[in-house]
This record gives sequence, structure tokens and C-alpha cells, in this order.
Amino acid sequence: MIDTIAFDGDDTLWHNESIFDMTQGRFRQLLLPYVPAEEVDRLLLETERRNLRLFGYGIKGFILSMIETAVEVTGQRVSARDIQTILDFGKAMLEHPVELIDGVVEALDRLSPGYRLLLITKGDLFDQESKIARSGLAERFERIEIVSEKDPETYRRILVRHGVPAERFVMVGNSVRSDILPVLEIGGHAVHIPYHITWGHEQVEEPGDGFRTLESAAGLPGLLEQLQVSASISR
Amino acid sequence: MIDTIAFDGDDTLWHNESIFDMTQGRFRQLLLPYVPAEEVDRLLLETERRNLRLFGYGIKGFILSMIETAVEVTGQRVSARDIQTILDFGKAMLEHPVELIDGVVEALDRLSPGYRLLLITKGDLFDQESKIARSGLAERFERIEIVSEKDPETYRRILVRHGVPAERFVMVGNSVRSDILPVLEIGGHAVHIPYHITWGHEQVEEPGDGFRTLESAAGLPGLLEQLQVSASISR
Repeated sequence: MIDTIAFDGDDTLWHNESIFDMTQGRFRQLLLPYVPAEEVDRLLLETERRNLRLFGYGIKGFILSMIETAVEVTGQRVSARDIQTILDFGKAMLEHPVELIDGVVEALDRLSPGYRLLLITKGDLFDQESKIARSGLAERFERIEIVSEKDPETYRRILVRHGVPAERFVMVGNSVRSDILPVLEIGGHAVHIPYHITWGHEQVEEPGDGFRTLESAAGLPGLLEQLQVSASISR
Repeated sequence: MIDTIAFDGDDTLWHNESIFDMTQGRFRQLLLPYVPAEEVDRLLLETERRNLRLFGYGIKGFILSMIETAVEVTGQRVSARDIQTILDFGKAMLEHPVELIDGVVEALDRLSPGYRLLLITKGDLFDQESKIARSGLAERFERIEIVSEKDPETYRRILVRHGVPAERFVMVGNSVRSDILPVLEIGGHAVHIPYHITWGHEQVEEPGDGFRTLESAAGLPGLLEQLQVSASISR
């Protein structure tokens, strides 16, 4: 019997990667006088990955990695004016309105009477809190957890804290790497709702199986009914 | 009867502001060919304060504010090489060893059998988690709360979550603004242990009264005994 549903935030409840993608487009354009676009993309992803260990996830780390990439890729020729432009790109990201993904509000409304709803989101504490507040969705969740990494240990800790057995728990998210695989590993259920863009670092070669995929959150209430039936049959 | 003691992290358990201070010294030195030191300090604090709303607290925001200050204070003449140097300053801060403040471990050891110990620290989630892990102190606290701001509402929420009445709670920290005043406001106790440097933003003109001040954490066990006695007399 599933009684607890947790949602991921970025690219599951609200648009996020599209804002990174748009910014990266502007960044590429800015550096075009110095270097070809593909070179910028390649080095930026490499820099982001190298800096993850120090910066963690989030927009501030992304801005720092863009600046570092700009210095490196131009052979230290990038102008101070261009650096300021990159800072402005980053600030625009932080101030970007939170845009909910279609179908989310309706799905939460339909699931809310029958399930305990959690929000488990990864990233920068300050930025995530700001997005949650601006999303207007905070009141719909019984608990909100902002975490720095989504690995099996993180999920295990959250389930223990809230007294939820893994077999009663389903995680809903867009990232196979962060929302699906670690939850399956600890014996929970997972529903994948892909977003139209996936950041290179979150991409996995072989998603594996053992989870369901939906096109939109609108399909969640129906899918959960099915899961309940199959869970009671398998008992 | 006080039964719960919460400690602040930065500049209470481990050195922090000294690392910012040292970095700001290097930053000032770097910009000396362009502009006088006082001008750098003044504009950096102004930039940090302006950016708090977007960046929150922590090292990544500080690095971004240093870069923005460097661009502005030099009239966009700062070189890409200097920008890289600032990024390197920031990375060195993030990798700086966590150095515990004298007397902390002994105080925790003496208080641990008689009190419930919490750690309530403000700042960047990723960076704080990393510092807590490296401090080796995590196991000594029953719960660790990393928050984006320390206002009365934050403390109220934490006390409710852990079922601690404010009159049984004492907060120990170096910042009058963040660790003392908001706790007094909700009816808790507070012990101020000043650090030898206070960031401009945390400075308060009139600290007020209603709290005790200690030179070092070594005095905590004795002070708590006194507080218990006076609490039982006032009943």
C-alpha cells in the first residue's frame, strides 16, 4: 500500500533546465568573438563537473563555472565588461519567475486527499527556498526537504525521519540518476516524468527498469491507482 | 529547567570569519594597482549587502561579490588573469581546513551527558555540510539544522519541530544579530561568545541585554549550572 508520494522540484514541479539552457545560449553568443560555440559547451560542462565537488549544485556555482570557462577558453583575453555580463546573466537566472509545469497543480489537488505529499529537492538552500516560496506550492506539502545530493543514503535518512517504509513510498521526478535509481535501490517505487532537456551531468546511459514513465504529471493519479492494485495483488 | 543547548557553527565551533578576512586582505592587495584599499573594502561590503537578497550567505556569494566589486572598482579595467586569481582565492576558502575553536570539544564533552545538543548553522547547504563533516563534531549533536536565515521565525519553527519549549532552550553563538536577539525575542535563553572579528553585516549598534557573555566555550558548563539555579529560583 503506497501512502507517501514525494516530488522532485526542478524540472518536475517547475521549469529549471530551460533557464540554464537559455543562459548557456547567451553565454555561447557572448564568447563567439573569441571561440566556437561547441568548444564553449564542452569546456563549460567539464568545468561544472570539476567544480561540483567544491560548489555543489545550483545557480551560483554555475555562474562561477561560466566565469572560469570564459577566462580559460579565451586564453585570459575576456574583458571585464564581458565578466560583468556573465554576472548579470546569473542574476537574471536567480530572479527568473518560477513557472509551474503543466498538469502539476491538478495532479497535486487530486492526490492530496489520499496521500501524504513530500517535496524533496536538490540544490542551493537559499535558491530552493526562494523558488518554493515563489511557486506557491509550499502549503501543499506536509514536509519539504532540501538536500545537497540525492543518493540512496539521503532517501534512506528522509524515510527514517518520517517513519515511512520504503515499500510505501513513491518518488516522482525527471532525473533517472537522482530521483529514480537511488529510490529503487532502497526498495521504494519511482515514477519518471522526463523533462525535454536533461543536463549532461544528470544523463545516464542505461536507465534500467523497475520504474514507470509518464509524459506528464496529469497521468499520476491514474498510475497510482494501478500501482496500488498491483501491490495488493503481489501480496 | 534548561534541557536543550544549540550551538552556532561558523565562528562559534570553528574559525570562519578569519578565513574571509584573510581572503579580503589578498583581494585588497590584488586591486592595489587600481584603487586604494579603503575603497575596495567599502565597495565590497556594499556589494555583498546588495547581493544578499539574491545570493544568500556563504562563500560562493562572496566570490561573486568580489568579482563584481573588482569589475566596478577598476572601471572595467581588471584583467581576466586577476579574475582567475579571485576565483582561486574563493576555491582556497572552500578547501580551507576546518579549525575548531579552543575549548569547544571539552565543553561539548562536559555538556553532552546532561543536555540535548543541537547545531543550528546558517549559510550555504553544501558548504556547511562539508564543514560539519570535516569538523568531526557531527556525532556529538542530536540534530543538525542548516538554515538560510536566523530570524525569530526560524528558531520558532525548529523548537516546534523538536518539541522544545523556548524557556528550556539556550542558544550559544558569536553573532548578537543572528544567535542572540532572535532567540531572546521568542522567549529563549542566549549565551554570546564573541569572535575576534565580526563581519560588517552582522554588527549591531546596541546589543541590548537579557543574555550572558563568555570569553570562551570553556565557561559554558559553569554558566549553565548558574542559569539552572537562577531559573529554579525565579520559579
